[in-house]
Amino acid sequence: MALRERLFDTVVACFKRHGAAAIDTPAVELREMLVENYGDNSRLIYELQDQGGELLALRYDLTVPFARYLAMNKINNMKRYHIAKVYRRDNPAMTRGRYREFYQCDFDIAGQFDPMIADAECLKIVHEILSKLQIGDFLIKVNDRRILNGMFAICGIPESKLVTTCSTLDKLDKMPWKDVKNEMVREKGLSPEAADRIGEYVQLRGGMDLVEKLLQDPKLSQNKLAKEGLGDMKLLFEYLTLFGIVGKISFDLSLARGLDYYTGVIYEAVLLQQENNHGEDSVSVGSVAGGGRYDDLVGAFDPKGRKVPCVGVSIGIERIFSILERRMKASGEKVRTTETQVLVATPQKHLISARLKLISELWDAGIKAEMMYRKDPKLLKQLQYCEDMGIPLVAIIGEQELRDGVVKLRDVATREEVDIPREELAAEIRRRLEP
Amino acid sequence: MALRERLFDTVVACFKRHGAAAIDTPAVELREMLVENYGDNSRLIYELQDQGGELLALRYDLTVPFARYLAMNKINNMKRYHIAKVYRRDNPAMTRGRYREFYQCDFDIAGQFDPMIADAECLKIVHEILSKLQIGDFLIKVNDRRILNGMFAICGIPESKLVTTCSTLDKLDKMPWKDVKNEMVREKGLSPEAADRIGEYVQLRGGMDLVEKLLQDPKLSQNKLAKEGLGDMKLLFEYLTLFGIVGKISFDLSLARGLDYYTGVIYEAVLLQQENNHGEDSVSVGSVAGGGRYDDLVGAFDPKGRKVPCVGVSIGIERIFSILERRMKASGEKVRTTETQVLVATPQKHLISARLKLISELWDAGIKAEMMYRKDPKLLKQLQYCEDMGIPLVAIIGEQELRDGVVKLRDVATREEVDIPREELAAEIRRRLEP
Repeated sequence: MALRERLFDTVVACFKRHGAAAIDTPAVELREMLVENYGDNSRLIYELQDQGGELLALRYDLTVPFARYLAMNKINNMKRYHIAKVYRRDNPAMTRGRYREFYQCDFDIAGQFDPMIADAECLKIVHEILSKLQIGDFLIKVNDRRILNGMFAICGIPESKLVTTCSTLDKLDKMPWKDVKNEMVREKGLSPEAADRIGEYVQLRGGMDLVEKLLQDPKLSQNKLAKEGLGDMKLLFEYLTLFGIVGKISFDLSLARGLDYYTGVIYEAVLLQQENNHGEDSVSVGSVAGGGRYDDLVGAFDPKGRKVPCVGVSIGIERIFSILERRMKASGEKVRTTETQVLVATPQKHLISARLKLISELWDAGIKAEMMYRKDPKLLKQLQYCEDMGIPLVAIIGEQELRDGVVKLRDVATREEVDIPREELAAEIRRRLEP
Repeated sequence: MALRERLFDTVVACFKRHGAAAIDTPAVELREMLVENYGDNSRLIYELQDQGGELLALRYDLTVPFARYLAMNKINNMKRYHIAKVYRRDNPAMTRGRYREFYQCDFDIAGQFDPMIADAECLKIVHEILSKLQIGDFLIKVNDRRILNGMFAICGIPESKLVTTCSTLDKLDKMPWKDVKNEMVREKGLSPEAADRIGEYVQLRGGMDLVEKLLQDPKLSQNKLAKEGLGDMKLLFEYLTLFGIVGKISFDLSLARGLDYYTGVIYEAVLLQQENNHGEDSVSVGSVAGGGRYDDLVGAFDPKGRKVPCVGVSIGIERIFSILERRMKASGEKVRTTETQVLVATPQKHLISARLKLISELWDAGIKAEMMYRKDPKLLKQLQYCEDMGIPLVAIIGEQELRDGVVKLRDVATREEVDIPREELAAEIRRRLEP
């Protein structure tokens, strides 16, 4: 939790820097609210037993509950973040940070606005968080559902095969195009020609240059949806250039993202494993953030179909956590689990009253203080406790100190001891530890 | 959430001041772990559907999962806090802060220690938190399960009726002794004489004086359990005197607390409603914190029955929250939901690039900044947004400012505007808002 809280602090600080308010929705939602929104993955939803009440289920993500919340409360504009647990009836893979119960960290902007300003801010947020966490070099892939749909249309893919083709396409970061094509043809029933046409597009990567090139593409620029998407992509790259982050952005026509509800720009950040042991080139080690625009989800929950366009991003906190944890174990670095500044100790017997009185004074002065829950602990045991717990200071109060109205303040690392007048103790601890 | 986070901050600061580490256990536990620990209340446990896996349930509180965690991980010593949601299939009562899904804030000390030191610290924590929150005058009632059991024994209550008698006794803060006695005799089957004997004890309230008096009580002091409990109660009052909080503590023989797992000292903090509209005396408005010692719970989960004594306290955050919320609504005070320091605004059209570039600089300098998601918003709308959201500053960048390399910094409240050199803007915002 100590490491996790550090991580949360970085993420929350960024979300607040961008003006988001925190909201909290229940972990339990009406089952019918959830089952229709996750396609095949609906089978992973944890359902509650019917114990004589509404039929309930545990939330699968934070996006659908957010849309439900906006619809129910008739909210037209909101910038919110939400850090909470979600639940999936899946096979856990601990080392890769995949659990049945795990945290999601979401930031979303809801409202009818001018194009791509909010979308660009979501990418800026991903860039800020991944830079701040120093977990290694990363790349943010972007694409647009409208470009994908247009591309599929001009390649002759029937609309009925869009979703299933997307899910095959998503595997292009794990296997070569040859295998992806094979799956498209043999399992998904595309014609080899259609697959080849897709292949020409989805292997393209680039920046503004690629956007410009595709805007000149005779077929793609004829397709209304694709043209809209490319126009917005151009604007997005202009804004990202102003934000100074365009160097980490890759327009990637193979990025599809599984979820049904995206309607416009989509993105996914991946870590690049640099200079690994085998001297190979940069390899992606998986997605650590992702999101996109979903303009129709709120309307689906609203009784009158009122539309609230949304764009958001989810930080893959569990995967980042497992990377940080592994790195820390490898380096032997230790994270303190408590923040205790001082242990109140006594060197002789029959001084529990003195300890209780002194620690009470320190607590009341806002100092983080502990004592051992023993009537007469040995001084050595008390000092050992500080070593074990990483407590930096010991306030020793013995018979002599009581007579003199002082406390002996000991620095655990240097073993230096200084007598401090009792009424100045809290200030002295603060002076040493809170610079 | 903004108000709630303030509340959590106060509670967490106190828990950390007392050297606790944070832990997080899953919201979902094995059903069999839970059902045996809550007596009658087990019917309130939310169970998950059997979807082909373990039989699961949502946690009912944080104490049983903590004990399960200590047992599973073979931990002998731990001081931990845990703030998380728990779930009860109960009838909600919103105004009283009773929900089906709600936060608990728990602090517990596990380990074999000398008597009453950790117990006294739990009471100190309750005192610190309730004082800090300034929610009005409060009283912390204490009793001991061993004193209760001894008292019941000498009054001739058979052990089989202990639990049910306790639950009737718990109503003494809501109805007069006469009615409690009636329930004991008519519904619980006690003899009127036994009920009268209980009545003599349970109407007693006091401090150290009452402890001393009961230690002299010829019958009670003969009972081994009661004598042990009274001896510890005396020690507890000595420690609480050293902590300087004895004035808010009431030894109250009617305090029983429903839960089965308590084995020693128990306590409950109640708010006293002072000077209410009808000029009545102080009236209790209900429990805002409670806890006690549970020495046998970890052993019940441990395969070898290894005993880990525990004492803890749970802060009734939802009830406190509903009190604070009501008070705020009554006073008309508003809590800002965001922390945005500055809105980046433009006074003319075609300046979105200037806004994006400037806001990006501010974010990178750690300033909490927003802009409107419009290409060409009217200045008046931008200023109105600040008023609505409580944003204190506006950074205005127009054609003139761009030429001069400055930004016009406007104070929303005073409407004063000053030109600031662009490279000094972040520092100036910090100087004004982060003293």
